[in-house]
Amino acid sequence: MKNNQSVTTNQVVESWELINYLGKTVYLHGSIYKVRKMKGFSFVLLRTKRDVVQCIALDNITIPTEESCVCLTATVVKEERSRVGYELQIQMIKTLSTPKETMPIVINQKFVNTSLDNLLDYRPLTLRNEKQRAIFKLQEGICRSFRVFLSTNQFTEIHTPKIVQSGAEGGANIFALDYFGQEAYLAQSPQFYKQMMVGVFERVFEIGPVFRAEKHDTSRHLNEYTSVDFEMGYISSFEEIMYMETNMLIFTMSYLSEYYAKELEILNIKLPYIKDIPAIKFHDAKTKISEMYNRPIQDWEDFDPEEEKLLCEIIYKETGSEFVFVTHYPSSKRPFYAMDCSENPNETASFDLLFRGVEITTGGQRIHSYDEQLKKMKERNMNIDLFENYLMIHKHGMPPHGGLGIGLERFTGKLLGYDNVRFATLFPRDINRLTP
Amino acid sequence: MKNNQSVTTNQVVESWELINYLGKTVYLHGSIYKVRKMKGFSFVLLRTKRDVVQCIALDNITIPTEESCVCLTATVVKEERSRVGYELQIQMIKTLSTPKETMPIVINQKFVNTSLDNLLDYRPLTLRNEKQRAIFKLQEGICRSFRVFLSTNQFTEIHTPKIVQSGAEGGANIFALDYFGQEAYLAQSPQFYKQMMVGVFERVFEIGPVFRAEKHDTSRHLNEYTSVDFEMGYISSFEEIMYMETNMLIFTMSYLSEYYAKELEILNIKLPYIKDIPAIKFHDAKTKISEMYNRPIQDWEDFDPEEEKLLCEIIYKETGSEFVFVTHYPSSKRPFYAMDCSENPNETASFDLLFRGVEITTGGQRIHSYDEQLKKMKERNMNIDLFENYLMIHKHGMPPHGGLGIGLERFTGKLLGYDNVRFATLFPRDINRLTP
Repeated sequence: MKNNQSVTTNQVVESWELINYLGKTVYLHGSIYKVRKMKGFSFVLLRTKRDVVQCIALDNITIPTEESCVCLTATVVKEERSRVGYELQIQMIKTLSTPKETMPIVINQKFVNTSLDNLLDYRPLTLRNEKQRAIFKLQEGICRSFRVFLSTNQFTEIHTPKIVQSGAEGGANIFALDYFGQEAYLAQSPQFYKQMMVGVFERVFEIGPVFRAEKHDTSRHLNEYTSVDFEMGYISSFEEIMYMETNMLIFTMSYLSEYYAKELEILNIKLPYIKDIPAIKFHDAKTKISEMYNRPIQDWEDFDPEEEKLLCEIIYKETGSEFVFVTHYPSSKRPFYAMDCSENPNETASFDLLFRGVEITTGGQRIHSYDEQLKKMKERNMNIDLFENYLMIHKHGMPPHGGLGIGLERFTGKLLGYDNVRFATLFPRDINRLTP
Repeated sequence: MKNNQSVTTNQVVESWELINYLGKTVYLHGSIYKVRKMKGFSFVLLRTKRDVVQCIALDNITIPTEESCVCLTATVVKEERSRVGYELQIQMIKTLSTPKETMPIVINQKFVNTSLDNLLDYRPLTLRNEKQRAIFKLQEGICRSFRVFLSTNQFTEIHTPKIVQSGAEGGANIFALDYFGQEAYLAQSPQFYKQMMVGVFERVFEIGPVFRAEKHDTSRHLNEYTSVDFEMGYISSFEEIMYMETNMLIFTMSYLSEYYAKELEILNIKLPYIKDIPAIKFHDAKTKISEMYNRPIQDWEDFDPEEEKLLCEIIYKETGSEFVFVTHYPSSKRPFYAMDCSENPNETASFDLLFRGVEITTGGQRIHSYDEQLKKMKERNMNIDLFENYLMIHKHGMPPHGGLGIGLERFTGKLLGYDNVRFATLFPRDINRLTP
């Protein structure tokens, strides 16, 4: 180990700083991503933290095998013909580690050319592909933009428990576990906790894992995913939440353009333009889809996946927007904490946000009155005692409030144009996959 | 609902902007935190997002009960005698919601004067106390400072799965669940995943929940907590990780002073001064404690809690530092992925960080060589097949690397001077507590 101490992280020049070192010798480290032999020299692609850096090695330099980890010294030589304006001429390479076996899958081409199952089975390796890792660098950018936006808008970030006594969303789709002899569950959402915290900080958010034991095997469902949740008090209508989300998404697009241009280029992504996001009532949307595509309406309570696609097509044609808010979902399909509309108690003060044919957000106003909440729970034959802790906040003063949840992987996937959410999930968990 | 629409969030003046509105009328909203009747008028303390704002209401204004949610208009009048330089004279109060029952516990005094159990049983309410909520605002600040520091140092933030096939830390302290007929576990740490991601991004971090099924019932253990994990590649020694953590903690202290001065004042906290953090080898520390306090050494493999306290006392007296790194822990007490020292294979290239008598960090260098890792696993009679996915990275090229995990709640608690970690945990989970 002692031999390496001359190469410490402090001395390493980051790839994006190389242009400032013209004529100088620099230290770099990284993985040998790809070697291309030419006449008298080789191109050596070095995978560093964020860039794949092209170097040149004359034939007197011994180049370690691909996926070896190395440190090297190189001279930064001005080169007008290069895209980056310089060339890196390797002086010395030192091998830090050598792979034990050759790769079971080719990762250093433009794409990882394999099935989704293979891509995921070899995830620790396939993520090393330049394009694959760019997806998750961009996903980091999305989270960062959300945090910057929400903090600027006075939301406080919280961490709420994932082992809970009762589920927030109800139903059978919940993972159970034995908690020291007591039955416990994995949180389906931070719903109850973020509402409790509205009473404390007025505006809160959380970015964390949620768990759904749904037996779906579809391209858009995961059994564990990252949920971006925010909740805000003192709203005068649920439209304020939609307004906040619209501004957040506008901010995200400008943030990604500014700080993640590199990944957008690698992934060849043109970000959607967002100004106002059109909104349509659920009932009107159902009717519209039915009329325009001559489809009989089977279910007046929900969309089927095909209808979500068709609605997005219609709205895009009409307005140019790839996003559409659907509002006023039927009460029967919304959870017990959803506030009903005063004009029509069969409808809720709620919304979904659809993007490119898929729902990426569910949100709405929540009931803040204790009497109103109790009434709705009794109508649904719920066991009030199980919710004693939750109802504490309604009993002791809550402002009008509401919020939303965004599925991070689904949003990332749709933004990047993937049909399957798994492409935008670091290590997916589904009914058939618990590894790696 | 329509009547409220004149008071939208956009028009609300934040408490810290009030000084710019001298002579003007402003809209505010919040909870009635406390009312103090005086002769001819009342002091009304309004709890807003981050401040408790003092207003004055003449007797012609009807003041809603405490914990009512209100919006109000008030005139900002210059007042030299006030600590903030102005006085808020209420013109009109509108009630948005009224509590159904009176508080079961007094929350609007300086402290919530009750037992820890009561404090936690009524958590959704007791968090509304000014001092209680300041703890978690400050905890947000700690996380923000970590994120800013790590991003500036080129770490990529990741989200790894919490439902896993095998535990990273081994042992029986793991929660099991049924995952569609297959046995699965809750992640004890993101260890394997962050190492996999070092092969991808070189430097990564995650702030997320971890789960330990330990049957401890102590003041410093939780069964679910928030772990701040980072992992970095291309290190030349494990001391580089300690160096990174030291700089991160220095940054945190300056960040909190700058952006969370308000909460530090409410909590009456003087932050520790950090420059260099002293380091002592585990073996030397054991000997030193034994000699200085005349305590026979029972266990050469680990500290007992009392020894951690005594060591911190010794180091504080000798150096003035409230932090101390303990290095070179015995191999027998470290996990199978810990790298042994080349000079002495009974010791690991590892460390703990102790702060005010308690361990808040465990870290170290990891084995990156496939052969070396396999050898250690075989020596420990581990079932290699179970770790096939993890070993993929060792087989296919990993740089020398290491990292650490910090318990967020424990660090927050010690920083604020609490003996029990539960005071710094939003909704604690322990062997006796699964609610709220």
